Amino acid sequence: MTYCVGMKLDDGLVLMSDTRTNSGVDNISVFRKMFHWTKPGERLIAMMTAGNLATTQAVISKLEERSKAPDDRQNSLLELPTMFQVAAEIGKLLRETVREIQDENGMQGMGRFTASIIVAGQIKGMEPRLFMIYPEGNFIEASFDTPFFQIGETKYGRPILVRGYDKDMSFEDAVKLLFLSFDSTLKANLSVGLPFDLLVVKRDEFKPLHERRIEYGDPYFDSISSGWGEALRSAFHVLPDYTFYQNAPAAKTK
Amino acid sequence: MTYCVGMKLDDGLVLMSDTRTNSGVDNISVFRKMFHWTKPGERLIAMMTAGNLATTQAVISKLEERSKAPDDRQNSLLELPTMFQVAAEIGKLLRETVREIQDENGMQGMGRFTASIIVAGQIKGMEPRLFMIYPEGNFIEASFDTPFFQIGETKYGRPILVRGYDKDMSFEDAVKLLFLSFDSTLKANLSVGLPFDLLVVKRDEFKPLHERRIEYGDPYFDSISSGWGEALRSAFHVLPDYTFYQNAPAAKTK
Repeated sequence: MTYCVGMKLDDGLVLMSDTRTNSGVDNISVFRKMFHWTKPGERLIAMMTAGNLATTQAVISKLEERSKAPDDRQNSLLELPTMFQVAAEIGKLLRETVREIQDENGMQGMGRFTASIIVAGQIKGMEPRLFMIYPEGNFIEASFDTPFFQIGETKYGRPILVRGYDKDMSFEDAVKLLFLSFDSTLKANLSVGLPFDLLVVKRDEFKPLHERRIEYGDPYFDSISSGWGEALRSAFHVLPDYTFYQNAPAAKTK
Repeated sequence: MTYCVGMKLDDGLVLMSDTRTNSGVDNISVFRKMFHWTKPGERLIAMMTAGNLATTQAVISKLEERSKAPDDRQNSLLELPTMFQVAAEIGKLLRETVREIQDENGMQGMGRFTASIIVAGQIKGMEPRLFMIYPEGNFIEASFDTPFFQIGETKYGRPILVRGYDKDMSFEDAVKLLFLSFDSTLKANLSVGLPFDLLVVKRDEFKPLHERRIEYGDPYFDSISSGWGEALRSAFHVLPDYTFYQNAPAAKTK
């Protein structure tokens, strides 16, 4: 499994992904799931992948090759004119890659080689944009109402994001919120694991503002993980207490 | 979908379930998923169900019939000597019910008519016990290490339970914690909905200590739901802040 979150803020974009891949519980590995390409001063394009590792690696390799092969340069992520076209091109490549391997495996391949991708970035003169691409190659864009996307094991880490997200929060607060969301997921699903990759992209900078791998034993992550239990307990006690008698007009206390 | 939680505390048992059933998003109804039988002063047995509604209603009806039909009374929940045998009997009934309808539908029935059940209760002279029964009829029991069970849409509401549960918490705190867990689930999955059913069973009382339906617009639930956002934000700000420079020795800030 995997857990990746891409978040759009007033100030820019924040992306975080885990690095665990597994085939069963006794075959786990560390693989990078976050990638980015930059043309300094002009564009930054980042991607995070979830799903079949062979599929996502094939997509990434094809994108890498294109950015180097001169005759296919018009479809390179570094040349396409808008983020919408970038998302469409990645979607097309994903669909083709999934379809190819599925066709080769017939009925047995149905649904087994799929993947999802989050694409985020900005091209000079345009807004930062955030997309989620489905295995079918179609995609949706983050909006004011849905300002972040999750792929992989999305459920455990969602409630804290829904409660904590604010589009005008600082990058530092956004990273703290992501750490909490990843901590909740980590505690519940063995197939999501450290290290994490973090990328912060400030609007109109076209290069990473902050890029880091959070390793096992990271002191800040540990302080968040251990402090959150205590902080939650305090928050819990701030809330009004339930009583069997007063607050409950319909209570039948036998 | 459904969301039910059964929790074992030092003081007894707390159970909460939603009541929404759906077949698609345009066909939703309210059905009770929590049931209990008592022999005052001697035993209380409670059940919560998730899964195919026809299956779970059939299981409940058969149990009800047995408790009334004199010739089958030895298998009635009110007569079986231990909670283990109660769980085994309900498991057997569930397996038979699922298998019957699946067999009648052949390949098309595979996996479609399944259900899970949480069973909780106490019989005089013995400890309160909590079980989770799988569609196959086998079951597991809550222990010191895993003191609560969830069925249905379990993921969204799990992190707060993991963080907040304490076996010596009061019934009032346990109810507050369950409200938070249900609130997180409600906010994320349309197919879990109010009203909720709540049952609190005190150790060695063999009757409900507190039993209630929490309706839409319940003032206490609303105060928890609206207060939690604020309380979480305070908790969030108590945690140490992330910085791109100091706390992150491995940071590459470009």
